[in-house]
Amino acid sequence: MIPEKMLEVIKNEGVAAIATQGEDGPHMVNTWNSYLKIVDGRIVVPVGGMNKTERNLAGDDRVLMTVGSRKVAGRNGPGTGFLIRGTAAFETAGPHFDAVAGFKWARAALVITVASAEQTL
Amino acid sequence: MIPEKMLEVIKNEGVAAIATQGEDGPHMVNTWNSYLKIVDGRIVVPVGGMNKTERNLAGDDRVLMTVGSRKVAGRNGPGTGFLIRGTAAFETAGPHFDAVAGFKWARAALVITVASAEQTL
Repeated sequence: MIPEKMLEVIKNEGVAAIATQGEDGPHMVNTWNSYLKIVDGRIVVPVGGMNKTERNLAGDDRVLMTVGSRKVAGRNGPGTGFLIRGTAAFETAGPHFDAVAGFKWARAALVITVASAEQTL
Repeated sequence: MIPEKMLEVIKNEGVAAIATQGEDGPHMVNTWNSYLKIVDGRIVVPVGGMNKTERNLAGDDRVLMTVGSRKVAGRNGPGTGFLIRGTAAFETAGPHFDAVAGFKWARAALVITVASAEQTL
């Protein structure tokens, strides 16, 4: 479900952006590629703040995420990116949370179940 | 309106993510920091595809953008990011389009009027 090239992208440092649906429009937060863990084919993100993201997911669990790197070859030269569509939930115990417990500030794990990962460049 | 530190961020290469409101939830596209131009305090993005973004903005002109760099100091160490809120429009002529005309594939300029730029890290 997660393409090899996307795994290659997140081995390079960069910003990963996460969008959820708020009552008042989209909401976005950022994390770093180096913070992402892949567990059982899911993308696991350590959560410090993300309070609005948590509230939004309680109402609509769909999530979008983008990642990219200039250092990985794309279709048109240097640089590629992915748009991930899926659903997400916050978890505060269990294997997904354990995967991010090394981030001492993590109050939860944002666990993204990937429905599609589209290469956009 | 655009903080100095954000200008510093986009001098470093990285992924910039842009979210708009679709009928069916948020939509996201990516561009590269190095593609962004600042003209009259607006953020100008060269547009290749972005067809859904264009349709979405016709219905709701609000836009979110995130940028970040691990190479610029943040509040808690290396790395900072910004969440930009604003409104956006597509332009196919005039000074904003001229600013991105060097990108031969650009069919338009996405012009973001910044309402706020919040440092998120």
